[in-house]
Amino acid sequence: MDGPERIEHRACFGGWQDVYRHRSAALGCAMNVGVYLPPQAAHGRCPVLYWLSGLTCTEQNFITKAGAQRYAAEHGLILVAPDTSPRGEGVPDDPSYDLGQGAGFYLDATQAPWATHYRMHDYVVNELPALVEAAFPATGARGISGHSMGGHGALVAALRHPGRYRSVSAFAPVVAPSQVPWGEKALGAYLGPDRTAWAAWDAVELVRVASGRLPLLVDQGEADEFLAGQLRPELLREACTAAGHPLTLRLQRGYDHSYYFVASFIGEHLAWHARALRD
Amino acid sequence: MDGPERIEHRACFGGWQDVYRHRSAALGCAMNVGVYLPPQAAHGRCPVLYWLSGLTCTEQNFITKAGAQRYAAEHGLILVAPDTSPRGEGVPDDPSYDLGQGAGFYLDATQAPWATHYRMHDYVVNELPALVEAAFPATGARGISGHSMGGHGALVAALRHPGRYRSVSAFAPVVAPSQVPWGEKALGAYLGPDRTAWAAWDAVELVRVASGRLPLLVDQGEADEFLAGQLRPELLREACTAAGHPLTLRLQRGYDHSYYFVASFIGEHLAWHARALRD
Repeated sequence: MDGPERIEHRACFGGWQDVYRHRSAALGCAMNVGVYLPPQAAHGRCPVLYWLSGLTCTEQNFITKAGAQRYAAEHGLILVAPDTSPRGEGVPDDPSYDLGQGAGFYLDATQAPWATHYRMHDYVVNELPALVEAAFPATGARGISGHSMGGHGALVAALRHPGRYRSVSAFAPVVAPSQVPWGEKALGAYLGPDRTAWAAWDAVELVRVASGRLPLLVDQGEADEFLAGQLRPELLREACTAAGHPLTLRLQRGYDHSYYFVASFIGEHLAWHARALRD
Repeated sequence: MDGPERIEHRACFGGWQDVYRHRSAALGCAMNVGVYLPPQAAHGRCPVLYWLSGLTCTEQNFITKAGAQRYAAEHGLILVAPDTSPRGEGVPDDPSYDLGQGAGFYLDATQAPWATHYRMHDYVVNELPALVEAAFPATGARGISGHSMGGHGALVAALRHPGRYRSVSAFAPVVAPSQVPWGEKALGAYLGPDRTAWAAWDAVELVRVASGRLPLLVDQGEADEFLAGQLRPELLREACTAAGHPLTLRLQRGYDHSYYFVASFIGEHLAWHARALRD
């Protein structure tokens, strides 16, 4: 992996909102990553919160719309927000918005033509933390969060790797991709038709067998246009209740699926992560 | 003027970030306006802060990127953010980014082909407040702020109309359009080559002759790429000193011209406006 090149550098809440570009070995392409360095990072190491964005997003959506930097500056958290899929010439794509570039689903594909480049899980849980902890003033304390497809990615990353993250949360996550249209399409394409292979990438399935019991914080808008069809948080509640997995699921009246929803509650999520990451 | 039609409606920090579309008599076209209604607006009338955006912007930039809703919800302020120019078929335009649609400069044009539609000053100071105060739970207390070209618009609106606004502030404003390339191009096109007509739309000129002395709050990034060529805040400082006009000019080290700069200080501006508007 080549060293990261800084392609954006903007003062923000006393720190720096940067964007880096680097060659990813896991993905076989160049990747953009948003990195917010809080004021505290000028004087010492800080814990890191990884943010995974949703369908159609790049690294830009979270850094321009969520307003998270204010809270990261208060708590002394580094924020790391990668793009949502491999991209570029030679990377397979699909004309629909919910498969291919912009829709990596944070898994490691096994099926042609996707298997070569679509390894976002490996990238997010292994390559990216190694890069961040080598290139920036980061401690080894990691939290992870995300929105929609990225909420799915965050829950799966934490559930598959007990001990790797000290905290996890999600906004309007796809909790049961095996049971909803977005997930059935993506998992079918990336992993093939054998549904037994899907369970390893499905938070509801993973909660049943998790060896760690890291508490989950999930916010879900009640006016979310994807609530009943794609998100179905009741499936996560049922699985957590059955397994005895700690879950704080908050249904937020009136809120939809947009970044106005994320912005309204990102401060509470960063406080939740900061408590775990500062201990 | 027709009543406004609500075209976006999103829960945000306990209130609602809406976008309305209405037919403007002043501009002779349909206009989009972002309106944030804080939680307090559900129970009573609130003061209004008008926000004027910069070159190339629409009503979307401020409402998606500035993170102002959090502070508006704390202070109980309605935020009103109109588009930056008339738009649509039949509205004159120019291929450059700094003239025509997206670059109305918040003045009332006198020259063909602009004079018919380009009346953003009249729209902002007369038509829009009348609309807002009729359609929303607004008190008559008004503040005004803006960024870059919109900072110019805010300063000019307040200086030309003593008593109409209780508070004014600006981020990286064009303070002396008569003396910088953006302004010379726009004022020349909209007002004609006689520079004596330009002084009525130039904050530095208006400060010299203002009959009111409303204090000005201006934040300016020291790393702003337009600082020396287009913004020149020292001209405003000199004019205010000479005229005895109260000015708080803060040069912010490291900050550029982007919304990361606006987001970093919008909370302090909203607190400044709230103090004046709540009295």
